[in-house]
Order: sequence, then C-alpha cells, then structure tokens
Amino acid sequence: MIHDSVDSAKKGSTCPSQANNDMAARQKQEEAAIKASLSKIKHKIFVLSGKGGVGKSSVSANLAAALSKKGYKTGLMDVDVHGPSIAQMFGMTELLDISEKQLLLPKKINENLKVVSVQALMQDKDQAIIWRGPAKTGMIKQFVSSVDWGELDFLIIDAPPGTGDEPLTVVQTIPEALGVVVTTPQEVALADIRKSISFCKTVHLKTLGIVENMAGFRCPHCNEPIELFSSGGGEKTAKAQGLTFLGSLPFDTRVVESGDKGSPLMFKEEDTEFTKAFDKIVENIIKQL
Amino acid sequence: MIHDSVDSAKKGSTCPSQANNDMAARQKQEEAAIKASLSKIKHKIFVLSGKGGVGKSSVSANLAAALSKKGYKTGLMDVDVHGPSIAQMFGMTELLDISEKQLLLPKKINENLKVVSVQALMQDKDQAIIWRGPAKTGMIKQFVSSVDWGELDFLIIDAPPGTGDEPLTVVQTIPEALGVVVTTPQEVALADIRKSISFCKTVHLKTLGIVENMAGFRCPHCNEPIELFSSGGGEKTAKAQGLTFLGSLPFDTRVVESGDKGSPLMFKEEDTEFTKAFDKIVENIIKQL
Repeated sequence: MIHDSVDSAKKGSTCPSQANNDMAARQKQEEAAIKASLSKIKHKIFVLSGKGGVGKSSVSANLAAALSKKGYKTGLMDVDVHGPSIAQMFGMTELLDISEKQLLLPKKINENLKVVSVQALMQDKDQAIIWRGPAKTGMIKQFVSSVDWGELDFLIIDAPPGTGDEPLTVVQTIPEALGVVVTTPQEVALADIRKSISFCKTVHLKTLGIVENMAGFRCPHCNEPIELFSSGGGEKTAKAQGLTFLGSLPFDTRVVESGDKGSPLMFKEEDTEFTKAFDKIVENIIKQL
Repeated sequence: MIHDSVDSAKKGSTCPSQANNDMAARQKQEEAAIKASLSKIKHKIFVLSGKGGVGKSSVSANLAAALSKKGYKTGLMDVDVHGPSIAQMFGMTELLDISEKQLLLPKKINENLKVVSVQALMQDKDQAIIWRGPAKTGMIKQFVSSVDWGELDFLIIDAPPGTGDEPLTVVQTIPEALGVVVTTPQEVALADIRKSISFCKTVHLKTLGIVENMAGFRCPHCNEPIELFSSGGGEKTAKAQGLTFLGSLPFDTRVVESGDKGSPLMFKEEDTEFTKAFDKIVENIIKQL
C-alpha cells in the first residue's frame, strides 16, 4: 500500500482540472490519518536551517537521543527526500516493518525512542530522488500519514534545509509544530538563517529559538581554542531578530564520528563540553513548553 | 521587464490546460535567448553537491577566481534561490545594471571575471523565497535567459545542493554543462554524494570528477594535523563510482573568513596548502576539456 501511494505521489500534479473525486476522497482519508496520528503526540519540534551542512540532522538526532534519555517517549522523523542522514546516524539498514493497519512501524532504538526515515521508502539507498516539488509534497504528506507512532511526548522532525517545498509542506501538514533554527556562526550561514526566520514569520511557525552549532573547538593535541567558523553570530542574530538564543554547541570530531557509526553522542554517558552544552539547550527548550 | 517576469514566474503553473499561445510564444523567445547567450560561452561547469555545507559555493567562487587569474574570461552564476551565498562571497551589495537590450549586466569583479546572483532579483536580501518547485523552475530559466554574459571561456554555475527542481532545471536548460561534484570526507556526506552521482547518470550530465573539501586541517597553534570530518572518503568514492578524483582541499579558516569578507582566497598571491591544492584541481579540470 505504501509503495503504491509513493508511486502515485511520483506522478503528483498541481493541475486542478486533473483532480477527481477519487483523489479528493483519498486526500480526505490522508488528512484524517495525519490528524489521528498527530493527536497522540504532545509536542512536535521542527528542526530547520537556512543552509545545509550546519549540523541540522546531527542536532535533531542528538535532541531526540537526549529527550529519550530523560525518559520522554520520543519519535524522530526524517523527511529529507534528497539527503536523508538520520538512518545512517542510527545505523538503520533494514526495511521497516508494516503494522496490521498497513502503517509503517518506526525502528525502536531504545525503550523511549523510535525513528523513521524517508530512506525506508527507497529501494536503493544510493539512488537519487529526482522529483519535482509537487511530487515531494505528495510524498511527505503520504509519509506523515503512514507512520504508526502511538503515544509520544515529543516528535522531532528533520526536514531539508532552505525555505522550499519540503519545509513548507511540513508546516502546512503539522501547523502546531514549534521551530528550532540551527546555524553555524559565520556570516554566509547567518544570511541564510535570516531567510529561515523570515520563513517562520511568513508561515506563522512559532519558533522556540536558535541553536548555534560548530562554534568553539579545541585542538585535540594542544587544547588551544580554534574558531573554525567564527563565533558569536548565532546569539547576535537571535537578539537582532527578537528570538530566544537556545545555546551554542562546540565542534567535536566525535559528533561526526558517532554520526557515521550510527549512535549519536548524546547516548554516551561521559560528560564532554558538547554534551554539557547540549543538555543546556534541551533544558532551554523544555522550559518553554 | 526582469521583475515583471519574476512576478509571473512566481505564479508558475504546470497545468497544461492553462497554457495559451502567449505563454508558448514567450517560452520560445526565452529558449532562443538562452541558446544565443550560451552559444558565446566555450565551457559550462556545473558545481554540484549532495548535501549543503560542504563548501560548494566556496569551491565555485574559488574556481571562478582561479580561472580568471589564469587569464580565462570567466562568468559565475549563482542560481541558489533559497540560500545564495555568492553575492556575499564577492561583496556584492548594489543592484545590477540593465543593458540597452534589457538584460542583466553581471558585476565585473576584475578584467576577466563577471558574477551574477539570483540575490540581485531580491529586494530584501533577508527575505525568504517561499516558492514551490514550478515557480523556481520558471525563475531559473528566466534568470539564465536574462543575463548578458558576452564572450566567455568558462561559465561556472553554482546551484542548490540535492537532486531536486533547481539542479534538474539547470541540466535541462544547459544540457552541455559538465559536472564537478563537491563533498566532505565523512560517510554521512558520502551517502548523499552517491545520490548526486546517480543524479548525474540519470540525467546524462557528463561529470569531470569529484572534489573532496575540508579534508585535512592543521592546528594554527601547534601545527598538528586534525581530521575534522574524517578523510579519504572522496577518493574512495570516486574510485568506486569510476569517476576522476580531482583532488582534496584542506580546511582553512581563511577560506571561511575570506568568503565572509567578500574576496575568495584564490585571489590572494600567497601560496598556502589550500591554494596549492586548489591549483592542482583547476589543472585536473582544464586538462579534461
């Protein structure tokens, strides 16, 4: 059923003259399924970024891991059609199971954490999804309606960077979601993040605040501080835009390694500068809810 | 004229029933303008990446700067609708001039280099472009047809990451372009680059090879090597996919700084590990043409 619908989403169309009763009925059914599924989830957090490569997926994965460690029932959904990284970050290789109701069953990572990725719908994980906008919109809606999350305290949604079809579809499908904006400190990234904030305002997405990523770094040999991508830009932008600054995360090569190895750093028990900074961000998010 | 057309692109539609003779005539005119403009350009190089933040715009900017320094007449075109970085990287703040033929005149950076960015079409540079796919496709085509490049040896095209509407539109509009794929060395990035390679094969885009970015790094304090994003992944992927490995670029905080300050590092006269590595990549590109 799911692959059938993905096929029909591929044929996606925006032409009103092609709409027929069948499609309208199907859309209604899909919307009802989305509403039913989302009604069992207390908080939906939508992790956004203006440009790619700022660590949006890494922040999403570690946020989900941290919340689950605190005892919250947490779901993590990757809707990045072109570059889904979440499956890799949790070492998900097998296909997902399907429930009796023909819904996708997310992968259980631990007692409190379930993860699902659009990757699960792709037969060859190295194949490019060369779909134009309308097809992607159809696929994301279909995907959101097809997952059996059960009861959750938090659903973390990792969407592609930018302000195009995919984030727009997520906001329209899950209008009660709260935004967390991730950036790195350099001006070229900040220019894009101002676009993301303009996006949030235009589509009326309530924003919890800004996370600055890859800000500080210490040489693992001599322990001297190195500014890889400059610093302080996240806090400055938050102030200028009247948004909460959720905190600054240092660059840590172990975040890259742990992402490649399939287990986010926030699962580890040891205290590092990164995990301490991340815990503060989680607190700053929770106290706003 | 240009802003009018952008307005009409915003309303973009894919519905065949809405097409009329006016639109068909306009499309024909646009295609003729694109053909005429591109016929005066010897080589078109399309810089791609699977995920954002790997330094695609930075490689594009430095490639254009390096070619112009070698004496080639070079153009650089930024078609990243959601996060145009090129304007920032060349310190372009003013609006572009319009020629007598009502075409956009690219900004002259030096005797051999001209740059144009979609940013030039935006009135407020912090405003998000929240356009769905068809509108973006219309805008990119319109943009390509509206620039008066004159005679060029090279046109470097910087498109958004991923395998969606924008890169697809570029390939369809400039089918003779040659691809250069940029990646960082970690597995999460390589998974996305394999999708880009699959994209190139599917849309028959001839690929010049892979550039690995942010590969090595030396602590500026103790000069010890630090692997920020792992290493060697670019060359391994090139081998596995039967593509040319164009070379590996070290991470250099001066690349970030010079991008923020509006003058790419390849304009500088001093020899660094980065500029030496970049020169090799330029040679590896030129000898394939």
